[in-house]
Amino acid sequence: MISVDLSKAYRLLNHGPTILVSSAHNGKRNIMAAAWNVPLDFDPPKMIVVIDKNTYTRELIEASGTLAINVPCVAQIDMVQKVGSSSGRDLKDSDKFAQFALKTFAAKQIIAPLVEGCVAWLECKVIPEPHNQNIYDLFIAEVVAAYADERVFSNGHWHFEGYDELRTIHHVAGGSFFASGEVHQASHSD
Amino acid sequence: MISVDLSKAYRLLNHGPTILVSSAHNGKRNIMAAAWNVPLDFDPPKMIVVIDKNTYTRELIEASGTLAINVPCVAQIDMVQKVGSSSGRDLKDSDKFAQFALKTFAAKQIIAPLVEGCVAWLECKVIPEPHNQNIYDLFIAEVVAAYADERVFSNGHWHFEGYDELRTIHHVAGGSFFASGEVHQASHSD
Repeated sequence: MISVDLSKAYRLLNHGPTILVSSAHNGKRNIMAAAWNVPLDFDPPKMIVVIDKNTYTRELIEASGTLAINVPCVAQIDMVQKVGSSSGRDLKDSDKFAQFALKTFAAKQIIAPLVEGCVAWLECKVIPEPHNQNIYDLFIAEVVAAYADERVFSNGHWHFEGYDELRTIHHVAGGSFFASGEVHQASHSD
Repeated sequence: MISVDLSKAYRLLNHGPTILVSSAHNGKRNIMAAAWNVPLDFDPPKMIVVIDKNTYTRELIEASGTLAINVPCVAQIDMVQKVGSSSGRDLKDSDKFAQFALKTFAAKQIIAPLVEGCVAWLECKVIPEPHNQNIYDLFIAEVVAAYADERVFSNGHWHFEGYDELRTIHHVAGGSFFASGEVHQASHSD
C-alpha cells in the first residue's frame, strides 16, 4: 500500500468504479456498496457519493462527519454484492464486517475502517450540504488521504496488466459488473 | 437506435463511462467531454454532471436549460480527446461539430444535437440548483428521453461481445482510457 498524492486522488475514481463506503461512530461501524460516486474537484480533491436515507451507513456518516471509500476488485465481486444487498442496521452484537468476514485496517485521519483486499482507499470528510443530502441523497466530501495497492496503481496511473483479479469493477445492475478493460491511449493527447 | 425505458436509463451511465455533453441555444451549439458524471436517481431518472465555469458548453446549457449526454465508444477515442481539449468559444462562423467533422442528428425533446457513432444518448433538462452550479460546477438534470445502439444495449443490458470498437470508454487522465472489459456476474445476485 502506498500513499497517493492528494492532487492525483481523483484518478482512483475517475474511470467510474463501484465502491464500498464504510463509516463508524461511537463504537458502531457499517459498510455499503455505491456505484453512484464521482470526483468533484482536483485539489483539494472532493468527491460525490449518493447514499440512500434508509442506510445505516448514512446514519453513521452523518453522526461522524466522515466516510471511507474502498475501491474493490474482481476478486471481491461476490463480497461486494452481498455487502450491497444487506443492511447492517438490525445486526445485534455484530456488524457486516463480522457477518462477511471482512478484514479491516485503521484509517489515519478518520475512524471508519478500511477494507483489506481492496485496491485503493480514500479517507473523506463530509462537507455539510443539508439541501443536497435531504433532497437528493447527495453527499459531497473532501478527500484528506488516499492510498493504493502499488501492484496496480503507482505514479498516478493504474496498471492492471498481469493482475486481472485486481481490476476495478463497474456495476451495471443485478450483480453484473464490468471489469476495467483494455487500455486505449488517444493519439492526440497532451 | 432503440428507445430505452426511462426506468432503465441509469444503466447507460451506472458503470462510469466518460461522456460527451452537447448543448445549443439561439443558433449556437457546442460539445465537451466529461468524465465526471453519475446517475442520481432511478425514476424519474436524474443524473449529475460537473461542468467547469469556463466552458462554452455551460453557457449554452444555462441559457437553454437543457443538455444532451452522448456515450462515446472505443472507435471515437481520438475524437473524444480532441473535443475534450479544445474550446468552441472562439470559433468564428464555425463550431466544434464542423471543426471535428461530427455528424449529428436531432434530439426529440431538446435542441442540443446528438452525435452519430456514439452508443447511447440521454436528453436532459437541468433542475436549477444555483448553489451547486456556482460553488461546485455541479449540474443536476432530469433525463427525459434515452436511446441506445441496440447492437450493444437492449432489454436494459449492455452486451459488447463481438463489438470491441463499440465498448464504452472510461477516462483516467491524459488521454488514457479503459474500455469496459470482461463481464463478471456475482454468484449471490438477486
